[in-house]
Amino acid sequence: MTKDTARLQRMANAIRALSMDAVQAANSGHPGMPMGMADVATVLFDGHVKFDPARPDWPDRDRFVLSAGHGSMLIYSLLHLTGYARPTIEDIRNFRQLGSPCAGHPENFLLEGVECTTGPLGQGLAMAVGMAIAERHLNAVFGDDLVDHRTWVIAGDGCLMEGINHEAIGLAGHLHLGKLVVLWDDNRITIDGATDLSTSEDIKARYEATGWHVVECDGHDFGDIERAITEAKETNRPSLVACRTVIGKGSPGKQGTAATHGAPLGAEEIAATREMLGWDHEPFVIPDDVLEDWRSTADAGRNALGDWEVRLNDSAQKTEFERRMAGELPDSNVLGQHIAKLVADPQGVATRKASEMALAVLNPAVPEMMGGSADLTGSNNTKAGDIKAFTADDYSGRYIYYGIREFGMAAAMNGMALHGGVIPYGGTFLVFTDYARGAIRLSALQQARVIYVMTHDSIGLGEDGPTHQPIEHLASLRAIPNLLVLRPADAVETAECWQVALEQESRPSVLALSRQGLRQLRLEEREDNPCARGGYRVREATNARKVVILASGSEVALAVDAADALEAEGVGVDVVSMVSTDLFDEQPDDYRADLLPDDGLIVSLEAASTYGWERYTSNRAFPRGLTIGLDRFGASAPARDLFERFGFTPDKVVSQIKEKLNG
Amino acid sequence: MTKDTARLQRMANAIRALSMDAVQAANSGHPGMPMGMADVATVLFDGHVKFDPARPDWPDRDRFVLSAGHGSMLIYSLLHLTGYARPTIEDIRNFRQLGSPCAGHPENFLLEGVECTTGPLGQGLAMAVGMAIAERHLNAVFGDDLVDHRTWVIAGDGCLMEGINHEAIGLAGHLHLGKLVVLWDDNRITIDGATDLSTSEDIKARYEATGWHVVECDGHDFGDIERAITEAKETNRPSLVACRTVIGKGSPGKQGTAATHGAPLGAEEIAATREMLGWDHEPFVIPDDVLEDWRSTADAGRNALGDWEVRLNDSAQKTEFERRMAGELPDSNVLGQHIAKLVADPQGVATRKASEMALAVLNPAVPEMMGGSADLTGSNNTKAGDIKAFTADDYSGRYIYYGIREFGMAAAMNGMALHGGVIPYGGTFLVFTDYARGAIRLSALQQARVIYVMTHDSIGLGEDGPTHQPIEHLASLRAIPNLLVLRPADAVETAECWQVALEQESRPSVLALSRQGLRQLRLEEREDNPCARGGYRVREATNARKVVILASGSEVALAVDAADALEAEGVGVDVVSMVSTDLFDEQPDDYRADLLPDDGLIVSLEAASTYGWERYTSNRAFPRGLTIGLDRFGASAPARDLFERFGFTPDKVVSQIKEKLNG
Repeated sequence: MTKDTARLQRMANAIRALSMDAVQAANSGHPGMPMGMADVATVLFDGHVKFDPARPDWPDRDRFVLSAGHGSMLIYSLLHLTGYARPTIEDIRNFRQLGSPCAGHPENFLLEGVECTTGPLGQGLAMAVGMAIAERHLNAVFGDDLVDHRTWVIAGDGCLMEGINHEAIGLAGHLHLGKLVVLWDDNRITIDGATDLSTSEDIKARYEATGWHVVECDGHDFGDIERAITEAKETNRPSLVACRTVIGKGSPGKQGTAATHGAPLGAEEIAATREMLGWDHEPFVIPDDVLEDWRSTADAGRNALGDWEVRLNDSAQKTEFERRMAGELPDSNVLGQHIAKLVADPQGVATRKASEMALAVLNPAVPEMMGGSADLTGSNNTKAGDIKAFTADDYSGRYIYYGIREFGMAAAMNGMALHGGVIPYGGTFLVFTDYARGAIRLSALQQARVIYVMTHDSIGLGEDGPTHQPIEHLASLRAIPNLLVLRPADAVETAECWQVALEQESRPSVLALSRQGLRQLRLEEREDNPCARGGYRVREATNARKVVILASGSEVALAVDAADALEAEGVGVDVVSMVSTDLFDEQPDDYRADLLPDDGLIVSLEAASTYGWERYTSNRAFPRGLTIGLDRFGASAPARDLFERFGFTPDKVVSQIKEKLNG
Repeated sequence: MTKDTARLQRMANAIRALSMDAVQAANSGHPGMPMGMADVATVLFDGHVKFDPARPDWPDRDRFVLSAGHGSMLIYSLLHLTGYARPTIEDIRNFRQLGSPCAGHPENFLLEGVECTTGPLGQGLAMAVGMAIAERHLNAVFGDDLVDHRTWVIAGDGCLMEGINHEAIGLAGHLHLGKLVVLWDDNRITIDGATDLSTSEDIKARYEATGWHVVECDGHDFGDIERAITEAKETNRPSLVACRTVIGKGSPGKQGTAATHGAPLGAEEIAATREMLGWDHEPFVIPDDVLEDWRSTADAGRNALGDWEVRLNDSAQKTEFERRMAGELPDSNVLGQHIAKLVADPQGVATRKASEMALAVLNPAVPEMMGGSADLTGSNNTKAGDIKAFTADDYSGRYIYYGIREFGMAAAMNGMALHGGVIPYGGTFLVFTDYARGAIRLSALQQARVIYVMTHDSIGLGEDGPTHQPIEHLASLRAIPNLLVLRPADAVETAECWQVALEQESRPSVLALSRQGLRQLRLEEREDNPCARGGYRVREATNARKVVILASGSEVALAVDAADALEAEGVGVDVVSMVSTDLFDEQPDDYRADLLPDDGLIVSLEAASTYGWERYTSNRAFPRGLTIGLDRFGASAPARDLFERFGFTPDKVVSQIKEKLNG
């Protein structure tokens, strides 16, 4: 054993010891993966990852993603050993306990150095693709001097089996993201047992078929790992480094078995492991010399940061670069003039078209916006403002043809937003949020500014039928914490919703937009952005108010028509455009009480599931109120016929309301 | 041109003419795919697919799946031309109109011969994998005499780009499903334009890497198509037939372009196409000789059916085979004795464990059940009753190691259920319904008896943290039409819920099950299955009733404890176990009104999003009632600490209720 090998061995064993001891202390967790990948991670951080623990926010740092998030003790060990302020050894002792930043799975909002939240398998790698996209784009805009870094991923068999893996690597291969390196923990074990229980795929051949460079190594031979990583850095294609490893390496009785995957090793086995590793330190004690070796891994990054700061200060683009990386918008009211024009010259367009009109203003004015669609560009109306395509030949482009990869798109957008310096938006049909839902949830959990442009938002899409008609989607998205769902009613509201979405620095937004044309309801200028309050009165009762109709999107005009008809019969009706229940819930009590009075009948009207609307329609006068919606799947027919068939006409709405009033 | 070529050409052109004319008449739809794949489909049905249009329910028919469902006019043309009772030519004339069975995308519940609903890309192929699994299993059980058929798929580039494709073909390759043949419409066009906008994958190499046999053909050369299909039938691996085609083939001005994909060709181009094809018949007119040629394609199948019926009548297994294919359970109360034992000897187990106990009884008694898990067998407790693995070496096994493929598993289960003869159930964590949601929705839309065993159903899973803790999932699943969500509170209710789920012949069920142990609440024998009513009183107020607590799953015991504490202070409390809001909504008014009185305070209690509960908690006395839940993401800590932290203790529930009563 050479001196350097002995040094690396002790560094790697520090990871193993921290991991097994923390899992044992928590009586819960996953020691197998950190122990198996300790050698690879040590070589990686010792000589390849560019980082400075004192400056985890350095924009040009390498990004490291632990896609196999259950192996969280690996990243906690690395962050502690290399010298990040957190986690402290006390944090690690409290692994998986309330209040510790060392959560069961790594959470980007709990620890600096955790670039993204991982655990839901496959998504870490797919987010890394987005980070690598953001890096190449910012490199193209700001040059090598300011942006030139790598994205590293550690992924397991689970990440590679998930469908999203196919989407992510297809996109990365197509875009030649050569600064992306995936280290695959090839341990041939899953929870259920050996991988050959469920797969017989030639993974290396699959990656090569998708345009990746593939190299293999013995994941426990430091020299071989070094050789493989060096080779991966030299190619201009994304690289898969297949690291042949033994899960739980170091545990004499359990290594190589699923028993090390997701449970503590047990006191006896831990003692045996200490002996096998020659690690005679108490739990959570790292000897000074090992710690010193680990701390020195940051030297190169610290020096690189010093050089980078000189370049930044010399750069003519310093201010703009810093603005973008801070996530500050260039202008607080980019759409003001656009809205004024709409008010002066009403546009009875579909809200997807209104979104395109807003984007035609936004994209030139907000250069950090990067758009795209999962192969529905013309339907989602997402390409506007003369932005050109982001391609392997031209990374300065700002429009991504994501292909038919909704989940991959959403995860990539998470990675882009978390990387910083860009604000991603992307489109598909609202019904296909189902395909991307795992990533939409992670947008919300990770507090990422991602904007989902979801068109064809109801049976109003017509002929494509029930597979394409969202019913439960608005409800199911509204139920996700920290996600804004915005459903504008016309062109003005659409612009206002774009403004709201852009201003959300720590949450994602879904814009639900119509396929069909909608008449413009907002015809007067306003100082404020009423959509930012979630709900507001678009029509006030002229007769004594007996009814309040809450509607969203395409049903607001219908509500107004029904209200007009009721007023003609002497029944006063308010109409509230409920653009976003999430935002409405955040308003002060008096604001909400003013819109939702305790007398009269409150009616919800939405061409979608009624699920959840009783929160707003219930009052003392009419417990549960009246919810008008669609609690069944749709059908294939022209939109007009469907609205008629399912009761979304002024006459039918009026008669339901009258029946309830008189009931 | 040989005589046979001329015959096939005219048959194929009949598909082209019907497709372009129907799309034109509807002024909406997708002519490009049916026109491009007309030649391949003609060869396929002329000599390879085993079917009898008079007996679309013949269990041993080949299954044909149009995974590229937007090309629905292809399957409507085929069904009409080959002689199915529906669609009639009038149905086709009314393509995409209200009431026509020729919906925008093929719907299994509208037409015989449509084996599954397609349109959401990738899922048709993934369901076909399930059909091929069911076929191999039933073949192993009933022998070649009764079950020996193929599954054919037509898929497009979209199907192959979707992540689920990776999961589906990985499973099919691993299981050596040699009777599955996928015909890939390799037209190099997607909606956004040429496929090279978004992908540069070597698809053939990827399929080969996954254990598939791959063969290519010119999709417009009848002889070459025949050769390729014949080769695909001869291998014992699943086959991909890469058919090089021209989208919109036959349209002189538009073929080969994205313009033919999703819009009518237009009157002028249709006239030019008629000329190019030499098709001088009026729209929707098929000349007799062409129709005769098409009708004759069913001859071989009709003969095969005759032979098969003889074999069936001779078979000792006739009764059992027919029972299974009819979807009838062998016994109406399989779990009766099991429940009696639980009542006599209460088991304070986790409901996932209770599910395993129920499965230990069910699997031996209901031989058509086929279980599995997406690599969480030990956590989902899905393997019970001594069923062995379904593997490439032994298709008689009934347990599928699906691998880390939640979406692929769910879609495969849809295919299995739709094939008939098996009742599939499969497990993952409840939070990962997000990954499978596209297929869960299709279970509901397709009215398929699929049982989802979703464990780790709340923050009660503890340390794994927010990525693994469902919050919005119960609400978001309840909002899906025609899907039963069942959340049992103890071992007895778990068995009752299994009974309910099995009895649903035309809808899927989600069983939401706890990781943590739950005390048994049901200690008395009952004649009925109260869980079948969705909600029922588990505890009746002793003092005058002032409060009703609605709870589900793990929170029912908590509700009982809180009720006991309130009763000690003289406040009468009913507790309702709300096992399934879906089933409860179906009960008669008086049943519901009895449980949800108009006086008193109604409280919902669930360690999950409160979204949707106001439907049940609102009454005149307390508009909106009180909803106790968790409207934020969870955290990583032991379950006990989380329940305390988030207010799920008797004390905290009691104090919230008292505050509301006194407020």
